[in-house]
Amino acid sequence: MFVVMQAGATEAQIQGVIDRLVELGFTVHRSTGVVHTVLGGIGPVENIELADFEVMDGVKECHRIMSPYKLASRQLRPGGTVIKVRDVEIGTPKVVVMAGPCSIETPAQVEAAAAAVARSGARIFRGGAFKPRSSPYSFQGLGEDGLKMMREAADRHNLLTVSEVMDQAQIEAMLPYIDILQVGARNMQNYTLLKELGHIDRPVLLKRGISATIEELLLSAEYVLSGGNEKVILCERGIRTFESATRNTMDLSAIPVVKQLSHLPMFADPSHGTGRRDKVIPMARAAVAAGADGLLIEVHPDPDRALSDGAQSLRPNQFDELMRQLRMIAQAVGREM
Amino acid sequence: MFVVMQAGATEAQIQGVIDRLVELGFTVHRSTGVVHTVLGGIGPVENIELADFEVMDGVKECHRIMSPYKLASRQLRPGGTVIKVRDVEIGTPKVVVMAGPCSIETPAQVEAAAAAVARSGARIFRGGAFKPRSSPYSFQGLGEDGLKMMREAADRHNLLTVSEVMDQAQIEAMLPYIDILQVGARNMQNYTLLKELGHIDRPVLLKRGISATIEELLLSAEYVLSGGNEKVILCERGIRTFESATRNTMDLSAIPVVKQLSHLPMFADPSHGTGRRDKVIPMARAAVAAGADGLLIEVHPDPDRALSDGAQSLRPNQFDELMRQLRMIAQAVGREM
Amino acid sequence: MFVVMQAGATEAQIQGVIDRLVELGFTVHRSTGVVHTVLGGIGPVENIELADFEVMDGVKECHRIMSPYKLASRQLRPGGTVIKVRDVEIGTPKVVVMAGPCSIETPAQVEAAAAAVARSGARIFRGGAFKPRSSPYSFQGLGEDGLKMMREAADRHNLLTVSEVMDQAQIEAMLPYIDILQVGARNMQNYTLLKELGHIDRPVLLKRGISATIEELLLSAEYVLSGGNEKVILCERGIRTFESATRNTMDLSAIPVVKQLSHLPMFADPSHGTGRRDKVIPMARAAVAAGADGLLIEVHPDPDRALSDGAQSLRPNQFDELMRQLRMIAQAVGREM
Amino acid sequence: MFVVMQAGATEAQIQGVIDRLVELGFTVHRSTGVVHTVLGGIGPVENIELADFEVMDGVKECHRIMSPYKLASRQLRPGGTVIKVRDVEIGTPKVVVMAGPCSIETPAQVEAAAAAVARSGARIFRGGAFKPRSSPYSFQGLGEDGLKMMREAADRHNLLTVSEVMDQAQIEAMLPYIDILQVGARNMQNYTLLKELGHIDRPVLLKRGISATIEELLLSAEYVLSGGNEKVILCERGIRTFESATRNTMDLSAIPVVKQLSHLPMFADPSHGTGRRDKVIPMARAAVAAGADGLLIEVHPDPDRALSDGAQSLRPNQFDELMRQLRMIAQAVGREM
Repeated sequence: MFVVMQAGATEAQIQGVIDRLVELGFTVHRSTGVVHTVLGGIGPVENIELADFEVMDGVKECHRIMSPYKLASRQLRPGGTVIKVRDVEIGTPKVVVMAGPCSIETPAQVEAAAAAVARSGARIFRGGAFKPRSSPYSFQGLGEDGLKMMREAADRHNLLTVSEVMDQAQIEAMLPYIDILQVGARNMQNYTLLKELGHIDRPVLLKRGISATIEELLLSAEYVLSGGNEKVILCERGIRTFESATRNTMDLSAIPVVKQLSHLPMFADPSHGTGRRDKVIPMARAAVAAGADGLLIEVHPDPDRALSDGAQSLRPNQFDELMRQLRMIAQAVGREM
Repeated sequence: MFVVMQAGATEAQIQGVIDRLVELGFTVHRSTGVVHTVLGGIGPVENIELADFEVMDGVKECHRIMSPYKLASRQLRPGGTVIKVRDVEIGTPKVVVMAGPCSIETPAQVEAAAAAVARSGARIFRGGAFKPRSSPYSFQGLGEDGLKMMREAADRHNLLTVSEVMDQAQIEAMLPYIDILQVGARNMQNYTLLKELGHIDRPVLLKRGISATIEELLLSAEYVLSGGNEKVILCERGIRTFESATRNTMDLSAIPVVKQLSHLPMFADPSHGTGRRDKVIPMARAAVAAGADGLLIEVHPDPDRALSDGAQSLRPNQFDELMRQLRMIAQAVGREM
Repeated sequence: MFVVMQAGATEAQIQGVIDRLVELGFTVHRSTGVVHTVLGGIGPVENIELADFEVMDGVKECHRIMSPYKLASRQLRPGGTVIKVRDVEIGTPKVVVMAGPCSIETPAQVEAAAAAVARSGARIFRGGAFKPRSSPYSFQGLGEDGLKMMREAADRHNLLTVSEVMDQAQIEAMLPYIDILQVGARNMQNYTLLKELGHIDRPVLLKRGISATIEELLLSAEYVLSGGNEKVILCERGIRTFESATRNTMDLSAIPVVKQLSHLPMFADPSHGTGRRDKVIPMARAAVAAGADGLLIEVHPDPDRALSDGAQSLRPNQFDELMRQLRMIAQAVGREM
Repeated sequence: MFVVMQAGATEAQIQGVIDRLVELGFTVHRSTGVVHTVLGGIGPVENIELADFEVMDGVKECHRIMSPYKLASRQLRPGGTVIKVRDVEIGTPKVVVMAGPCSIETPAQVEAAAAAVARSGARIFRGGAFKPRSSPYSFQGLGEDGLKMMREAADRHNLLTVSEVMDQAQIEAMLPYIDILQVGARNMQNYTLLKELGHIDRPVLLKRGISATIEELLLSAEYVLSGGNEKVILCERGIRTFESATRNTMDLSAIPVVKQLSHLPMFADPSHGTGRRDKVIPMARAAVAAGADGLLIEVHPDPDRALSDGAQSLRPNQFDELMRQLRMIAQAVGREM
């Protein structure tokens, strides 16, 4: 790390910072300029908070040189990580699509959705059984019954399953049914949950919080990775900005940024990212054009009657047409589907 | 709710919306204008999502008339709620200060902090035993040992205690030691936790998430209230914006807005709101001037050696001087301390 | 417009709002519900401010039904607008690319840039002669000399020209050289400039401000359109958010949103939208995949030595490869290049 | 500046950066660590763009050590700047209030407003004659006639005047009537205007743009200062965030931040900052509590009939009561009014 002293910092102030750094185990290099003195410290940077130095007398600013995450860093595995889930590989040039309804509602709905997404080329079936809802009066999901329905439908159509886990207490119940455990945007910094997921042997789809920086997303991945679970898939799903014409603003530039900083696969969820069916299609196409390793898309056999998020769910025929376009775009950017 | 049809919407499209509203249990009033047809629906609005209507053919936009929260609404208790915790009342003209260190570290630190804040006029002792940290490599808190230390120090100085609960599994362990359970910004939408807190008889201090709207804050309060726990205290602690000169941007206008929309007491946390000791003091003063019912302030006997958030912790003498100024400001705005 | 009265609004308060609306020329319909009274007003809505009603006693909230812009609205021309500039048509299924250096620097640089972008298929040559810079100490542009160089190079390669106008006083000087006048993000609400541009017969490329909503962008277009100039091209170039990994966050969902709300052509500028060369390529691809009518891309023969924005300028060979990929993506989404 | 090379950067890449820095006139110090090589450059940092280095091969990140502004920096005048305008001093412990209507409308309205604000203790009369409006269909101001009315009313009540200049062409017309020229938020980066204002001898009130960082605000001040005009007053008036309960989010922490970084006086405008009369009062109090050197407040004799921004204008009796409270708060924080 570097500590830049203010112009006119006194010798006592400079020495104070040096002493503190040395006390914390750093080796310090001092470089005295015409205006500013700069202190470079080599040491156990993960245990310190820059702000602690920035409020010291005479300090102008501090900079960290090393990224605060390690296991999530691309440096660790420059070639990128491929996550194998049964017969599906995630993180290869092949773009993988996870699709299905927002909520698991009835056996007929689940079956129709699974059949439709499998037919159009999705490999993984998504659906929610535990639903995080802003209002306590909204539909909260079918729980374990929903998971069972989902597994059966997925098996009939040779699909894997992905579903959201909201609390560490739910993990156990999900394992028999769900191949990939999804952590939703609201729980991206639920560290108790992340730590638990670090101890199981099941891929985790970690969604970016709506106000999380990319660095915070990678730090949350680090929680899972540092527990021993190496199978983390990241996902952009829209951030909160001042613009209200869409529910969230999809930050598609996060895709190339994450691919550069980390070795983990990076997905995009245009359904939650836009909140409107007619915007899902262009943004799904844009995400693949921007280099996403896969997509998460809501598809419902009858969106007008969905119990949640119907407005952002594609109809099966729309999804089918979208998959056709995505195959062409994947090819244009040197990938396949 | 109101549905505004697009200019040129067909009779079939209008009828489609009416049919859907009636099917959901609404009574519909139609008003035909020169350009737009507007449909007003009276019915079970808490179960519907506006977006579901906004994507219907021919629809221009929808508006909800009723607030999506009820129990948190000021209408329910226009005079405001007073929460009595042992001998302290929260929500009266008396401004209440909760103060103490970010993390509970050692018995000596806890004792020094409790003595200092009590001496300067704080009534409630804050301290963290379970710490949510962005990095898995940061100090994670002392757990139950910390809670015990905290209780003992608080009792010696006739203070109540407030501490953060991060997961429903921790609630049980906290009850013997902690008078007010704090839900941190990262967990504001951890609905599993909120529901559990709705079932206990202990005040909850609910902090606004860094990207949560005021409406979402009140909806999260509604989760606790609807479970039967009526003792919820809200707290502004800074929102995330593009400005990086401070860690967060304190949204002090949230104070008068919440006081108008809700009957619940509204606090402010200038320590997390700014992240820098020298900004805590002006913003604490500003929060009281803006009408806050209380403050949450980090005070540490030796901030330079704090294990977490030292940069934003006041020294005891700074806290003492701040309390002196706050008393004058409280008076200027018709309150006391 | 609609005015929703608070629960418990008195008859006098309701009458007060009705009187005010009638005084302003509105016809008012009153609808009395169990909880809320709602007043619908038909009248000269463009002259009123909703906030004026929202602060009236007893009022809960107000909603505007008509868009505040008219000439920019898609309703006016549902088929979309095609802008013909010499032999180039903008707004057709053909995606149009404007490319060139950030600043006009030397005759050799301009010639090399124009030759390169023409060779790869761009139709319009971009370059800045008047530069808006955050710091007064940065390079401010060559002025009219730069415009002349630009025109000559463009003519040699059969390209049109586009360049930024920063002030009404510069318009006259630009007309002999520049085919399309660009209004930069910082001037999107420079109304003096917009009004002047409404009175000339030259297409205007209007960039979205970094904190402008889509509605505000369309209102700024309305300034030009209402002056009589019907040739306005809109452009997304990134909005300001909390994320600092990229200079701005490109809001690609603005592309389908604008196409739905307005008949005007919608471009994207991934160079300013990302600020980094390696992010320009994926975001340019994504913009076309999302439905952009055209792109604005910075290309410099020697970006490492550019006087401004070199970091976001593509090298000619990168631009050439990008154009190849874009042609495939355009085809995938039913367009051509 | 510092350039941090990536782990594993090659010697050729490191040399490439050194060569480029030397070519630009920098002296370079190289420091080789276990993981990262860091290059420190001393030289003409105001002419370079960090991004140009950040995209060079092998570079991880760059940091600037010197602030990009100089004349606005507190270092230049650690004691702070006092601006004397006729008999009013701005920047002293005395808090100065500028008040008056949003728009100048009629002689009677101007007279009533001036009389009211003078009576309650304001020293400077504000009012708009040239109005920047989002919609071309809104009231655009009375122009020079308005300025004249304003001057006469101000003189009758021994007030100074402040009014917004929107374009360099208006400066000349304003000088005979207006003591302080205000640059509105939308024009904070209208560099043509700022440069012109640098050449006149008249104080400038520079408002922060709704999406401008504090650094950008200071850079815009630098434009005026570097032209030779040393009389710049800064003003916070709300930034754009995701929260829609208020028109903007007042960033009151900007007040202590600016006071620390710059020697210029810092004001706050709670009228534009909140957009709602009932929020103006608490936020005005909060701004003084946070350390503002002055306030800008809209007061209208009959806000319900104002031609612009009536919803955020205080009634004269509200303003009078506010001034009474502000005097007490000023005292609490060691100032006077």
